[in-house]
Amino acid sequence: MTAAPSSLTRKAIIREVGLRDGLQSIATIVPTERKREWLRDAVAAGQTEIEVGSFVPARLMPQLADTEEVLAYAKTLPGLFASVLVPNLRGAERALEGDADLMILPLSASHAHSLANLRKTPDDVVAELGRIRAARDASGRKTLIEGGVGTAFGCTIQGHVEESEVLRLMQALLDAGADRVSLADTVGYADPASVGRLFEKALKIAGDRFCCGHFHDTRGLALVNVHAALQLGVSRFDASLAGIGGCPHAPGASGNASTEDLAFMLEAMGIDTGLHIPALLALRAKVAGWLDGEPTHGTLWRAGLPKTFATPATA
Amino acid sequence: MTAAPSSLTRKAIIREVGLRDGLQSIATIVPTERKREWLRDAVAAGQTEIEVGSFVPARLMPQLADTEEVLAYAKTLPGLFASVLVPNLRGAERALEGDADLMILPLSASHAHSLANLRKTPDDVVAELGRIRAARDASGRKTLIEGGVGTAFGCTIQGHVEESEVLRLMQALLDAGADRVSLADTVGYADPASVGRLFEKALKIAGDRFCCGHFHDTRGLALVNVHAALQLGVSRFDASLAGIGGCPHAPGASGNASTEDLAFMLEAMGIDTGLHIPALLALRAKVAGWLDGEPTHGTLWRAGLPKTFATPATA
Repeated sequence: MTAAPSSLTRKAIIREVGLRDGLQSIATIVPTERKREWLRDAVAAGQTEIEVGSFVPARLMPQLADTEEVLAYAKTLPGLFASVLVPNLRGAERALEGDADLMILPLSASHAHSLANLRKTPDDVVAELGRIRAARDASGRKTLIEGGVGTAFGCTIQGHVEESEVLRLMQALLDAGADRVSLADTVGYADPASVGRLFEKALKIAGDRFCCGHFHDTRGLALVNVHAALQLGVSRFDASLAGIGGCPHAPGASGNASTEDLAFMLEAMGIDTGLHIPALLALRAKVAGWLDGEPTHGTLWRAGLPKTFATPATA
Repeated sequence: MTAAPSSLTRKAIIREVGLRDGLQSIATIVPTERKREWLRDAVAAGQTEIEVGSFVPARLMPQLADTEEVLAYAKTLPGLFASVLVPNLRGAERALEGDADLMILPLSASHAHSLANLRKTPDDVVAELGRIRAARDASGRKTLIEGGVGTAFGCTIQGHVEESEVLRLMQALLDAGADRVSLADTVGYADPASVGRLFEKALKIAGDRFCCGHFHDTRGLALVNVHAALQLGVSRFDASLAGIGGCPHAPGASGNASTEDLAFMLEAMGIDTGLHIPALLALRAKVAGWLDGEPTHGTLWRAGLPKTFATPATA
């Protein structure tokens, strides 16, 4: 590992979304005990932020029906910051009951995608965030609220999404009480130039409250899009082990940025992720085994680390 | 397509290496008539620079035994700049006889890789370039000479390769009479930070005579490495259709940057490649069919172009 250029962040956080964004698009139901094992191994490999599930109705997403138990277990792991996705106030109430460290409310900047995926307009979601903020404040919990603006670079239903609309909705989420906001390229339409343009404007609006970039590798650009955002000072990125995941409304989507490939890129660049890559690769092999027959992604698991790459002796 | 940021190149050239670097690592022998069809379709899709083969002994690389015929055909295609790889003076003489537009002499900065792959030390290769320059000058041909410095970021045999050694050899190639030089990450060890560091120094040494970056996607970083080099003003990159290729001395190597994915990235960024992506994808499907059973790579062929991507109506 060599020193990073001074303009780049020295440390970055990879937020694991495999247990939520990954598993929600996979038919196989991973038993709760295996999810606990995944969390244990992930923390042992150095992961400190994990999205452990989603408080959606179990009938809609049986893969994540055990989110309450998984969250409860995650809360017992020292040093782990556990987040959950919440689609609405009801989900947020469950996140507050479970004392999640963070709840993420997804908003789709594409009106068509929002109606298809959430059955609400984006502005309805902004209003829901206001109600969630009130509930959080009334609860006495410290659970943070993140407004995640998805389909920020376009969508497969509507096509083009206006940059100004993405930024308007991000500002509206902040005004409605979001502690943080993030941007997601839900369907893999972003490129390094569009990431540079949109993230620069988002950072001007949200400042320190801009917390994360979420990229899908549908067209092979997840890592280069991370690189474009890194250059603006963004230092937290969502990724999923084995690159699992996708969007039910994004046909052909090939998953999230792969955690292990992203960790390799960042560490090779001299950016400290706190992750032990051989331990991540061992966990990847285990999870890929559980998901036998499901599509997995990434390259590092096959090629291995370069001979020139220095890793610490133990996790 | 939107305008590229002013700091980035407005135009870039993707040099096709599928017919050489791609086919040389694939067991299937593609018949000469199909190579002609590949060249025709590639030119129709807008490709203007193609490495058509390698003047190595046919017994060592039967896949490329027809390079003389393929080069002769390439020379009949208007607007095509046809290059060949030459391992030594004998190969260069054949390139001159065939009136290639460019001959590329590969040098491996890793001494161990150089001995294993070329049975020469890097400095022996520099001396050979001097002899090739003399032969070219005596021939009256206009064939350009490129010195390609490979294993520039390390190698699977020796591991670490000193940056200073890479730069020394690049300077030596220029001093020996190379018209141009290029850098190759032969085994997929580069990352955006190491690309930034080495390419910046190489550009200081070679200036306008620095012509090309060659990246392998072994660990998923080919496109992000292109992005790092683009930011320094580099505007020519090697790539192979369907990402075919690899290095016989790089186990697990997963091929070159994929032409179609790279074209998509550049065009999405507003950088003009002159390529018609749907025509490239049609050619990719054809070539993948010829290589039935061989590993191919890339993502765009599966996902398709985004709904938001504007392409010209005809090739």
